[in-house]
Amino acid sequence: MSQFWSELVHNLDPYVPGEQPKVNNLIKLNTNENPYPPADSVLEAIRNATDDKLKLYPDPNADLLKQRIADYFSVQRNQVFVGNGSDEVLAHAFQALLKKDKPLLFPDITYSFYPVYCGLYGIDFQTIPLDEDFAINVNDYGDQGGAIIFPNPNAPTGRLLTLKEIEKLLINNQDKVVVVDEAYIDFGGQSAISLVNQYHNLLVIQTLSKSRSLAGLRVGYAIGHADLIDGLERVKNSFNSYPMDRLAIYGAVASFDNEEAFQQSCRAIINTRETLTDKLQSLGFKVIPSTANFVFASHPDFSAEQIAQKLREKAIIVRYFNKPRINEFLRITIGNNDENAALCTALSEIITS
Amino acid sequence: MSQFWSELVHNLDPYVPGEQPKVNNLIKLNTNENPYPPADSVLEAIRNATDDKLKLYPDPNADLLKQRIADYFSVQRNQVFVGNGSDEVLAHAFQALLKKDKPLLFPDITYSFYPVYCGLYGIDFQTIPLDEDFAINVNDYGDQGGAIIFPNPNAPTGRLLTLKEIEKLLINNQDKVVVVDEAYIDFGGQSAISLVNQYHNLLVIQTLSKSRSLAGLRVGYAIGHADLIDGLERVKNSFNSYPMDRLAIYGAVASFDNEEAFQQSCRAIINTRETLTDKLQSLGFKVIPSTANFVFASHPDFSAEQIAQKLREKAIIVRYFNKPRINEFLRITIGNNDENAALCTALSEIITS
Repeated sequence: MSQFWSELVHNLDPYVPGEQPKVNNLIKLNTNENPYPPADSVLEAIRNATDDKLKLYPDPNADLLKQRIADYFSVQRNQVFVGNGSDEVLAHAFQALLKKDKPLLFPDITYSFYPVYCGLYGIDFQTIPLDEDFAINVNDYGDQGGAIIFPNPNAPTGRLLTLKEIEKLLINNQDKVVVVDEAYIDFGGQSAISLVNQYHNLLVIQTLSKSRSLAGLRVGYAIGHADLIDGLERVKNSFNSYPMDRLAIYGAVASFDNEEAFQQSCRAIINTRETLTDKLQSLGFKVIPSTANFVFASHPDFSAEQIAQKLREKAIIVRYFNKPRINEFLRITIGNNDENAALCTALSEIITS
Repeated sequence: MSQFWSELVHNLDPYVPGEQPKVNNLIKLNTNENPYPPADSVLEAIRNATDDKLKLYPDPNADLLKQRIADYFSVQRNQVFVGNGSDEVLAHAFQALLKKDKPLLFPDITYSFYPVYCGLYGIDFQTIPLDEDFAINVNDYGDQGGAIIFPNPNAPTGRLLTLKEIEKLLINNQDKVVVVDEAYIDFGGQSAISLVNQYHNLLVIQTLSKSRSLAGLRVGYAIGHADLIDGLERVKNSFNSYPMDRLAIYGAVASFDNEEAFQQSCRAIINTRETLTDKLQSLGFKVIPSTANFVFASHPDFSAEQIAQKLREKAIIVRYFNKPRINEFLRITIGNNDENAALCTALSEIITS
């Protein structure tokens, strides 16, 4: 608290990211990182870009990366926006596209950064309850709102909307921007990017942090109609001309150049997710059907908070949210096979002890 | 223009950064980059950090880097804020500390991003004219304002305020935040960081883009009283949890670890600046006394715009601002000795042709 703060600062309720512990030898299943490392070709591209040219500003438009992403998804370069992680892309989208006269609509259980952005930009919002199975019902999103945002699959539930349901939402809300936050789409969902040329109110946001194993590089992007992208660019160019550093640009391009490594790690994670889901169910957990690189699970006989605490004593960390409706659930990131086996053993011990 | 934009977006007047041309073999003296490459030890540290850990999120607080900067400047870690280039640090400072009931004060001729930030955050501002020699007079900044910001040395003039003058300004304005933007301080000025423990209204912002040859890495920082830093952190944590990627953190730490390379390139630039200033004066230019890695110069007999155009025909680019009071000046970045010699030859040809 300080007399020198702007009035806004006093009222902020900042986002609290998952813990990034500084001790080693933990099994870290709390922030939905990819258990597999980035491809060697990506590391090599970054090392090759680590040269004297770091003395120069990067391309403020990061055209090389935008073009690579445009080619990958068969859209035009002016339909692509890039930023310093999808959190920055989301922040700009809230300010540029989601602040309207009517409130912004999003699910009651969802990415907990959304209300924080609303606080930062003074955006009025209204939450729409998920149904009792934690599913989004697209018919609940209607005239009461000025814009809509949700993750698909949703976080922290992992539940997916089909492309057909998203299309229905777009048709019913053609006068509103609909942002689909696809941080986890590559683990079994179908991207709405295929709809951007048909629905000019659709913005799709993705990240390299999860399916592309590059959380440490900070790259996210948005794809939509050129007019939506232009709105984002205007805000970005009023905030920071050069958000993408030279190394992030080259590393991200190399990631899109290596389809095989990308597909392989997605497949491995999907397989482990199915194994883990079976095991959790055999231990008596209720597991929400997940299309993400995490599962959301609760146990009828054990408190989620206590399980999380006991896992931590065994050097395994998962995410627990002390919030209404979900305070009996754990969000567990899908690790590699060894991490998964260790988790299952630990959970068995906790449940049967 | 789009029906989907927030009202704000229609009214933005985004910043236009200096050109980053995509052709080679240009002598690029238009964006105040350092002509000398980053130290080998910095490149090595980045390459070493380019490993499997890129799959993990970086430390959201970048404590390693904050501690290194704190040690370097003999302050506490909670007095240091870091961001994705000093432009991002400035953006957060405008939102967190410079939006007050009374207008923000800054010079009429200064970094042209300042009014852009004001547009982004709805900050009322008032510009204070530099004197006829383009100097800031600290007595002109008084009760009419709610906060104060200026670069020291100022851009694009290169003129320095002494620490004594800054202290006078701080004493006269103890109820207002004073931000000193020291992007160019290492080329001959004295940093106000030595005053932060005495004046709790002072925030000093620096960058690794100029004196540390790392414009391509995007790292900036602010130093001030812990309360001011806390205000910045609250905004940052409502915007993007992880603005500093793993490679930026390690590269920046390595830069502070190599004092010799840093001092050497600063000295070389200062020497070249003096050589260039003499040469320009001998060609009839008026040169504003500079403490930056650029000079600001005009010629009584030749239009600045035309000189810039003729230099471009000779593959040398400098910065020309078509703005009141400075439209007869060129801002010329200090290059290395070869670039400087080529520039002087080209200017001689243009002036004597």
